[in-house]
Amino acid sequence: MTLKIALAQINLTVGDIQANSANIIKSSLYAKNQLHADLVVFPELSVTGYPPEDLLLRSDFIEQARQTITEIAKQLAGIDVVLGFPDEHQGRLYNSAAVLRNGAILTRYRKNALPNYGVFDEKRYFAADNQSCLFTLKDTVIGITICEDIWQTGILAKNKQSGAEIVLTLNASPFHAGKIHEREAVIIDQVKALELPLVYVNLIGGQDELIFDGASFVVDHQGEVVFRAEEFKEQISTVDFARQASDSKLIALKSTCAPLYNQISSEYEALTLGIKDYVRKNGFHGAILGLSGGIDSALVLALAVDALGHDKVEAVLMPSRYTQTMSIEDAILEADALNVKHHIIPIEPAVNAFTDMLAGVFAGTSKDTTEENIQARCRGVILMALSNKQGKLLLTTGNKSEMSVGYATLYGDMAGGFAPIKDVPKLLVYRLARYRNSIAAVIPERVLVRPPTAELAPNQRDEDSLPPYDILDPILERYVELDQSADEIIAAGFKREDVARAISLVDRNEYKRRQSPPGIRITPRAFGRDRRYPITSGYKGI
Amino acid sequence: MTLKIALAQINLTVGDIQANSANIIKSSLYAKNQLHADLVVFPELSVTGYPPEDLLLRSDFIEQARQTITEIAKQLAGIDVVLGFPDEHQGRLYNSAAVLRNGAILTRYRKNALPNYGVFDEKRYFAADNQSCLFTLKDTVIGITICEDIWQTGILAKNKQSGAEIVLTLNASPFHAGKIHEREAVIIDQVKALELPLVYVNLIGGQDELIFDGASFVVDHQGEVVFRAEEFKEQISTVDFARQASDSKLIALKSTCAPLYNQISSEYEALTLGIKDYVRKNGFHGAILGLSGGIDSALVLALAVDALGHDKVEAVLMPSRYTQTMSIEDAILEADALNVKHHIIPIEPAVNAFTDMLAGVFAGTSKDTTEENIQARCRGVILMALSNKQGKLLLTTGNKSEMSVGYATLYGDMAGGFAPIKDVPKLLVYRLARYRNSIAAVIPERVLVRPPTAELAPNQRDEDSLPPYDILDPILERYVELDQSADEIIAAGFKREDVARAISLVDRNEYKRRQSPPGIRITPRAFGRDRRYPITSGYKGI
Repeated sequence: MTLKIALAQINLTVGDIQANSANIIKSSLYAKNQLHADLVVFPELSVTGYPPEDLLLRSDFIEQARQTITEIAKQLAGIDVVLGFPDEHQGRLYNSAAVLRNGAILTRYRKNALPNYGVFDEKRYFAADNQSCLFTLKDTVIGITICEDIWQTGILAKNKQSGAEIVLTLNASPFHAGKIHEREAVIIDQVKALELPLVYVNLIGGQDELIFDGASFVVDHQGEVVFRAEEFKEQISTVDFARQASDSKLIALKSTCAPLYNQISSEYEALTLGIKDYVRKNGFHGAILGLSGGIDSALVLALAVDALGHDKVEAVLMPSRYTQTMSIEDAILEADALNVKHHIIPIEPAVNAFTDMLAGVFAGTSKDTTEENIQARCRGVILMALSNKQGKLLLTTGNKSEMSVGYATLYGDMAGGFAPIKDVPKLLVYRLARYRNSIAAVIPERVLVRPPTAELAPNQRDEDSLPPYDILDPILERYVELDQSADEIIAAGFKREDVARAISLVDRNEYKRRQSPPGIRITPRAFGRDRRYPITSGYKGI
Repeated sequence: MTLKIALAQINLTVGDIQANSANIIKSSLYAKNQLHADLVVFPELSVTGYPPEDLLLRSDFIEQARQTITEIAKQLAGIDVVLGFPDEHQGRLYNSAAVLRNGAILTRYRKNALPNYGVFDEKRYFAADNQSCLFTLKDTVIGITICEDIWQTGILAKNKQSGAEIVLTLNASPFHAGKIHEREAVIIDQVKALELPLVYVNLIGGQDELIFDGASFVVDHQGEVVFRAEEFKEQISTVDFARQASDSKLIALKSTCAPLYNQISSEYEALTLGIKDYVRKNGFHGAILGLSGGIDSALVLALAVDALGHDKVEAVLMPSRYTQTMSIEDAILEADALNVKHHIIPIEPAVNAFTDMLAGVFAGTSKDTTEENIQARCRGVILMALSNKQGKLLLTTGNKSEMSVGYATLYGDMAGGFAPIKDVPKLLVYRLARYRNSIAAVIPERVLVRPPTAELAPNQRDEDSLPPYDILDPILERYVELDQSADEIIAAGFKREDVARAISLVDRNEYKRRQSPPGIRITPRAFGRDRRYPITSGYKGI
């Protein structure tokens, strides 16, 4: 006897029950007809996409998902299908999985462990169950779990005790750098201890801030990874399980293991997938961005072209009196290197108009950041006009370091529908740019070595207002991502004045972050649904 | 024996442990020395303010709160103090209350019922306990509960069974229209059934989107409200409890009951308190807003002046070629009626500059909303420049109907730090304006009767793009606040085409709402922390 299990690592869209259903049916038929699988496993909440957020509070949505499960079941026979959906039972909603067999629901599992931390809010929507769910296929007893279940000890053991010979797990496990290693390590430990093979199916695709990275895998009873699907790509593959002649133990047969990306390439892949899916799933005709000649917009341009193709991307140069010639030259070189159409629209006429219009009310005041912000906002108006006219998504080019300390202009360089590198600290921006250049040089070396500047005032440099990034970035990581206190950061060897400056800027710029566009999460803690701070707050980190 | 209990309905600031601590000490001394109270009760999480959100994940913050409780205890003797704080115990964090007596913590209560719906996320931070907490003062056995505890059946009963003769409840219960009636009704029902008097202390003040409305109250054992503090104001008052001679039962003595505002005046008060606290707690020098001659900005101007005083508010008129003369006249009348300084800055020079700058890239395209948005964004640049230069908060004047259907320009009329009427549907804007005029006429009648227009194109009216508000608003209420399906709304008597237009606009404008400034929640479901929808979503309500 061989049991052939297909892992359907597919890209689903939140809320689009109809399209997801079509994808599930098509993938199941492929698994049955082309791959001859006995069973196909889909990701968590496959029918609704993940996370559906407050759509789960709508009874019309829940009802539509329920009906869809029945319809999917009717269209599939000759293969067992395990998929995820929100299921109401006795007045409570559960994050559930169903096994479809021969046109009907054979059995259901209701998630036991609900994550309600970080980017997860499952206790807002779901009740937790405490029952396992086993079913038998080809004389094999199969258990079902969903995502968080297997990060906790006890639930896999319960499956084993109940007689499971293999456990399937349906996941929507979001990416951050290194997450795949955490994931495999945690699961291998549990599987080894129980000698229970496990089939891990993960979602792939971008959903607002989140990237689901796929990399579905199978671990055999000895804790060895015998199969791994590619990261960041759709893939439907099978793994065979057979009984050992000696003791009739169920053994996972060795299959192909896609190699894992190293950290920098996985970050780059996550960012391109995020842009691609945001543009596609939201129906944009392409993307535009402002190209300043600086490193941030250079990287975003490369990411956008890699995600969408050069013909879907447009760049806009908007020089002012403070823009150095090399900035214009380098921006043009970047656009040309990637074969991207660019426009040059100097902002002076609009800046002058505003300056004149405000001369009366500003009489007697001295220049400050107000005048710098006007320049950035003139650029915002131009970019949004192009975005509106062409139906192209405006990509914002700010990085995580800037977002942390508020070194950006609201409605100016922060204007846009999506912020690809919002969770990328400045030092990582440089590393990603060098990584991209290592594949093919598209960003001029001068852009990588010149001191960062916003070019909103004469001879301005970021370091005039901020600690150097090689000091700032590690402070920010400790404060924002690790919740370290000022004292802890200082004790780690940073100067009190640098720590104080960084922390107080982070504290007082929550209002800007609240109005920033969503961006792609690639670190263990991104701004947005991951780090939720009050705007009105008397807390001072130092 | 008389037991005198003080209810400290005070305005606390999230995160500002030092200021909150000072307020708690001052209020306790006042309750002891001026009011001769035996016991003073503070709101939920009094030391940190509510809700502290992810500050609760910082161990430095939790430690600071813990130390502060000890310090407060040391400074207070001769009165029992019951206050709220986050308390770590055996590696878990609890939403707790402490009883301070004679310089030390006498006992602690840990919240049993954690709300994790609507605007609440307590399961993200706290573990739930299942123990009651009783203490004795003047031979009276007193129980403690926190907010959600008394909305569930069972917890008060458990207190009664354990011997409580009276129950204190510490609350941070946010306002929406009519909430006070819900609150009193739910609690009176429980108290009556158990014949257990209850002391309900609520927070007051604005915190980002939330308003805490106070209206603390005491219910006697027969379910009668014998005391009620004012709504929307700080107040420290006492209620006496004495034993009945006949059966030595504890009786709450009748005290003063502040009358309740009717709905429209409570909404008006909530809005002014929200503006006042956002400006004060965030350290702004005042507020500015664009005054269009329309009803929305007229109402926001009146609210801002009522909240901050006329000398703290500035209005800016920014006419274009599409601005009718009556709009300018009425805007000036509004500013003059409230004695508010105004500026007039026509936007044509900037609009012309952008038109010229974009002429090249827009060659061959026809006019659309892009050109309308440019006008709105020129106004955004001017208002933000004034806000930046003066340190005054820019108030956005969009209403809930516009926010729902996206009838607003991102970075244009949506620009600003705070959106006072973001949760006020258009029809309620009119009712609030009439209410304000009934106190003193400050908004010209013409503004109340002319058809609404954005004045971004010749002879434009809102009704050209949207169903009339008397049809749109009830559809939006059903879809957004009540989660009704299109079929349900149509069945209630609305035309399919109106429902379809409204719903599809709501569905596709989540991206705009995500970048809008926070506003004051006054309905049972506001956009923001209350209604959390994905941007990328294939869900179609119709």
